[in-house]
Amino acid sequence: MENTVTKLFGIKYPIIQAGMIWTSGWRLAAAASNAGCLGLIGSASMYPEVLRAHIRQCKLATDRPFGVNVALIYPQVEELMQIIVEEKVPIVFTSAGNPKTWTSHLKEHGIKVAHVVSSAAFARKAQDAKVDAVVAEGFEAGGHNGRDETTTLCLIPMVRQVLDIPLIAAGGIGTGRTMLAAFALGAEGVQVGSRFAASVESSMHEAFKQKIIDLKEGDTQLALKKLVPVRLVKNAFFKQVEEAESRGASAAELQEILGRARAKKGMFEGDLDEGELEIGQIAALFNSILTVDEIVNDLVKEFNQAQSELKGLLL
Amino acid sequence: MENTVTKLFGIKYPIIQAGMIWTSGWRLAAAASNAGCLGLIGSASMYPEVLRAHIRQCKLATDRPFGVNVALIYPQVEELMQIIVEEKVPIVFTSAGNPKTWTSHLKEHGIKVAHVVSSAAFARKAQDAKVDAVVAEGFEAGGHNGRDETTTLCLIPMVRQVLDIPLIAAGGIGTGRTMLAAFALGAEGVQVGSRFAASVESSMHEAFKQKIIDLKEGDTQLALKKLVPVRLVKNAFFKQVEEAESRGASAAELQEILGRARAKKGMFEGDLDEGELEIGQIAALFNSILTVDEIVNDLVKEFNQAQSELKGLLL
Repeated sequence: MENTVTKLFGIKYPIIQAGMIWTSGWRLAAAASNAGCLGLIGSASMYPEVLRAHIRQCKLATDRPFGVNVALIYPQVEELMQIIVEEKVPIVFTSAGNPKTWTSHLKEHGIKVAHVVSSAAFARKAQDAKVDAVVAEGFEAGGHNGRDETTTLCLIPMVRQVLDIPLIAAGGIGTGRTMLAAFALGAEGVQVGSRFAASVESSMHEAFKQKIIDLKEGDTQLALKKLVPVRLVKNAFFKQVEEAESRGASAAELQEILGRARAKKGMFEGDLDEGELEIGQIAALFNSILTVDEIVNDLVKEFNQAQSELKGLLL
Repeated sequence: MENTVTKLFGIKYPIIQAGMIWTSGWRLAAAASNAGCLGLIGSASMYPEVLRAHIRQCKLATDRPFGVNVALIYPQVEELMQIIVEEKVPIVFTSAGNPKTWTSHLKEHGIKVAHVVSSAAFARKAQDAKVDAVVAEGFEAGGHNGRDETTTLCLIPMVRQVLDIPLIAAGGIGTGRTMLAAFALGAEGVQVGSRFAASVESSMHEAFKQKIIDLKEGDTQLALKKLVPVRLVKNAFFKQVEEAESRGASAAELQEILGRARAKKGMFEGDLDEGELEIGQIAALFNSILTVDEIVNDLVKEFNQAQSELKGLLL
């Protein structure tokens, strides 16, 4: 398949490996790029110089295009952007902020920019800011989430209507069938998070990887809506949040319960009870920790299989 | 297309028109059946003898198969079932209850039974209860909703894994592309609600039909989770519920705010501020009130168009 997304990024498959906190280091990004996808380093859990080290390692580990995901609310975002330019990273995915702030600066340095949104309204703003592509992420996604709670099935056609640039679907996509569904809805690429989080090359703690593949349907939920909505595994920490929210706890109280470094505690240090465990609904379908190559092979095989089953089916 | 769903119900298209309260009377059901779909009368907002009248009118208005949706929590469910048997309704869709209670009784009378679920666990129970098909409905659906909040994109593959019988996808399906996505995920039919709610033949109040087609993304939300989760338009009544939930209101207080007959007030009597307005997320894509024939034509046309765009696309 060659399409607007593969051409834009110079990749074989229109599959983006999401740049997730505590997960997407150079090992994962390089493996994804080597497998024909676009690998993304997730910078939001990295100090600036840590990001630089990951970028340099990634360059050594692959000669294919890769990128960095930058959360625009990151306190030292200017340092991150400077490093990205200095290190000549070819592609940046921005999220959680205004796409106007950095897009033109990055593009002046020849960097391709995609921006992550959760609504058609934000997609239009990203297009107006002259990004090269939009990632539209639905309610089923792990981690931070939009306030409208629009699901991927509804979101992609709504975003498609307002975009002239390439559209990448995210949220709930971790298998070939869900990828094909995204294409049926009008997407030209997919961003896959949870499935790569439970890969051999992911930097998540092994205990959390095991937890991910043990999850069943209904084992994640959106929480902390009075702060920033985030999809979490329903562990002991989640239940504490849920109890507080049920009795009407204020944002300040929720912030106190959340405290600091909860995501690191859970996802990187492996505290499955007291940590914040971010993962998407689709994780309930995963049964084993796989290498990135195995994951990509499975995605391609199931996509093509589902296509052959649909082939010629007309109403 | 001929498949397990069209053969099971004896219909042309694998499209079920959902049996919705205050919406799906004989006019809508007969129009849907005449258009080649399976029309369903929604009995949950009908007194038993009102249902009998609708069934009789429906028989006069179509010679194609049609069915009745029965919410198993309905207080006079025995009277409804007796009328359904007496009137020789060929198909029943049950929801909101245990599929074991009525399935064998209905099947002894030659009635085909489908059961609506929101999880793979309930799907397995429905299959064990020997229903003929399962409807799996995701988080984006209007009205009553499951507690797991699993979206259609994630739910359909999870349910598909555990079912040997036909699977009908619901929630977020109101266009040909979303229908094709459901097929890509492994469904063999779709149940369409919101799109038919805003049809000429729907018995909803005209003011609410107009409201539906004016909705934008983010204009509905799941509420009343301490009672039964229900997706509602964010009107004045919703905001009163939201404020109460935010401060931790108890189930008893929410029940008092809800009161009685809120859905009738909104959906049938057209009180757009104080009524309970149940509709799905996908309604944000609809721009006009259409006849059932126009809706079915659009679904078929867009499905086939999307198929032709996907055709031959392999990874």
